[in-house]
Amino acid sequence: MTTFGRIIVALVLTFAACWGQVIPSHPASTNIPGADFPRINADFSVTFRVQVEQAQKLQVSLGFGQSVYDMVKGTDGVWEATTKPLAPGFYYYGISIDGFITNDPGSRTFFAARKEVSGLEVPGDESEFFAVKDVPHGNVRIEWYFSKTTGETRRIFVYTPPGYDRSAARYPVLYLQHGYGEDEAGWSYQGHENFILDNLIAAGKTKPMIIVNEDGLTGVNFQPPPPPRPGTTPPPPSRGVVRFFMDERYPTLDQIISRDLIPFIDSRFRTIPDRDHRALAGLSMGGAQALRIGFNHLDQFAFLGAFSPAIAITDTDKDYDGIMADPAKLNRQLRLLWLGIGNEDFLHAPVKESHEALEKAGIKHVWVASSGAHVWTVWRKYLADFAPRLFQ
Amino acid sequence: MTTFGRIIVALVLTFAACWGQVIPSHPASTNIPGADFPRINADFSVTFRVQVEQAQKLQVSLGFGQSVYDMVKGTDGVWEATTKPLAPGFYYYGISIDGFITNDPGSRTFFAARKEVSGLEVPGDESEFFAVKDVPHGNVRIEWYFSKTTGETRRIFVYTPPGYDRSAARYPVLYLQHGYGEDEAGWSYQGHENFILDNLIAAGKTKPMIIVNEDGLTGVNFQPPPPPRPGTTPPPPSRGVVRFFMDERYPTLDQIISRDLIPFIDSRFRTIPDRDHRALAGLSMGGAQALRIGFNHLDQFAFLGAFSPAIAITDTDKDYDGIMADPAKLNRQLRLLWLGIGNEDFLHAPVKESHEALEKAGIKHVWVASSGAHVWTVWRKYLADFAPRLFQ
Repeated sequence: MTTFGRIIVALVLTFAACWGQVIPSHPASTNIPGADFPRINADFSVTFRVQVEQAQKLQVSLGFGQSVYDMVKGTDGVWEATTKPLAPGFYYYGISIDGFITNDPGSRTFFAARKEVSGLEVPGDESEFFAVKDVPHGNVRIEWYFSKTTGETRRIFVYTPPGYDRSAARYPVLYLQHGYGEDEAGWSYQGHENFILDNLIAAGKTKPMIIVNEDGLTGVNFQPPPPPRPGTTPPPPSRGVVRFFMDERYPTLDQIISRDLIPFIDSRFRTIPDRDHRALAGLSMGGAQALRIGFNHLDQFAFLGAFSPAIAITDTDKDYDGIMADPAKLNRQLRLLWLGIGNEDFLHAPVKESHEALEKAGIKHVWVASSGAHVWTVWRKYLADFAPRLFQ
Repeated sequence: MTTFGRIIVALVLTFAACWGQVIPSHPASTNIPGADFPRINADFSVTFRVQVEQAQKLQVSLGFGQSVYDMVKGTDGVWEATTKPLAPGFYYYGISIDGFITNDPGSRTFFAARKEVSGLEVPGDESEFFAVKDVPHGNVRIEWYFSKTTGETRRIFVYTPPGYDRSAARYPVLYLQHGYGEDEAGWSYQGHENFILDNLIAAGKTKPMIIVNEDGLTGVNFQPPPPPRPGTTPPPPSRGVVRFFMDERYPTLDQIISRDLIPFIDSRFRTIPDRDHRALAGLSMGGAQALRIGFNHLDQFAFLGAFSPAIAITDTDKDYDGIMADPAKLNRQLRLLWLGIGNEDFLHAPVKESHEALEKAGIKHVWVASSGAHVWTVWRKYLADFAPRLFQ
């Protein structure tokens, strides 16, 4: 190549690099390797492309119908849509093909709403705390153990912190539950609990701990309340719906966790097997389960967390079989009661009322009134707020 | 209820129970929890049901188009198809909706052909060896490590055998690779390597070992040869295609495994870090990679396995840079060279020719000419044949 040619190439490459700074359009991190779409644009709008030869109407449906975008058919059967700029975070979505909602072949799927659903990560400054950084990494173990309660060999996910395998130290344990329609993999695959903890531990903000994720959807032959229709403001969940998660769904999981899982974890892992080194938390349905099971087993747990939970505490004298009727006693027993909800969450009203009821009764708790809806974007942040408060 | 009524109910229940014995129709184990369809019938035919309101034509496409069944539209937009009786094993499949192939909402997805694909497990006597039994279970660890070769933090799956955490013993390691379009999770999620090993170890047939699964599809911006069209007999793969996997794709993975991964595994896990306690195997593309990388690093591996590999050895003096030109030397170096292919596999001809070339040159190897096609059903059996021969 001539010198002149080299200069031209260098100029083009420099220009391309600068252009890249201005328009850093790139495939989403949730894409399957090598897939160019969905594509995050410079303004954090997202462009979707799907090839479908025969169809009348295609739509991108974000967040189970919260936002719907019509796709436009181009040449060769390639349909395209670009969203408005999206806030950073994790979105479940589907492609509606003539009304049938299915997956985008370009994205990885995640278990949600009791099926495999396409996922989209929109990055931003707020993604830093769960990013894969050059810090020591723990691992996530897929373990199988036998539950006498269900008579099954059950699969669990267990995070062990960096250095677990090289030390003889014993660790505290956080039992952390997913929401309705998800499973024990959710806190790893959607939540990135491992990277959140790796980063917090590396920064010296959180004590190294083990995290255990069980499948909280024990018995699945029931239907949850229907999701709100797009464009409508749903009524606050009725007390009946909330009771459903609080009181009717918990007994099997209560037995699994308190009788089967804790003994297994304490025998399999180097834990500190007492209530002062054991926490229970969860999101949505899992948050309701965490409070119900935790209040039932204050001999086993001293730290409780409810992330956007499906709860509605109104009568602290009677709710939870009266466990809150003696606030001074409960305050002595619990070293942390954490409650948080986003201001766009459809469960906002009953959770805020629950907080007010606790406040009124003098039951100590950490109250986090955040922005955000009923989404993983919020729950990752809640874990990053909750974990540093544990086992101190 | 009257006594007469009770008798009638008892009779009906008894009849239903007997009928259940005769026709033990049940949801597939690969279904999402609670999904009634796909459903395995008594004769091992499988009934699929999908609800699609607006569509002209639905089909079930098994094995990427190997068998296609038209679905029939019933009431309420529910489409149904029942296959012929299927051989036990694992099937990838899709639902074709007016020509667009997508997932069945009733099934879990698995990463294959570089996308998320519905999977179907058809049980049978042959499922016993990877069934979840009442034996001690190892675990599967999702680990992250930094590769200097790619400059990335890479995800790997690592099986550790029962008792690993409670002992101070050191273990041999099998590096086991997936096929084209799959990833490091394949040997766990599709292959059930953990249950295969748990069962073999419990039966005293296999030495406890660690298994490591890397992502072998390094760089994904290429297209593999197109799959055979349904109903046609594909030509045997050209030498060019095979060379593609043998010689052009391996260098990055070779460096990752030999320079980055092995040192990481030997530092993170209690391994026996020498060639006599290290094996490398893979399926399809991974089989080609295992032979190529293994022959390059006989200082690191004494056991090699190629399951239905994309290879075509014809000239043992020249292939693999002449590593086989001195058969006596290679026979001394390799403690096991394992080669297997199914008689319905589209790679059958070149693999059989490879075996014959090895035989002719006097290169010792275990040759397994099995039934079956290019599917996980076969590779699970190959692992169960291969693992007991290791580290003896």
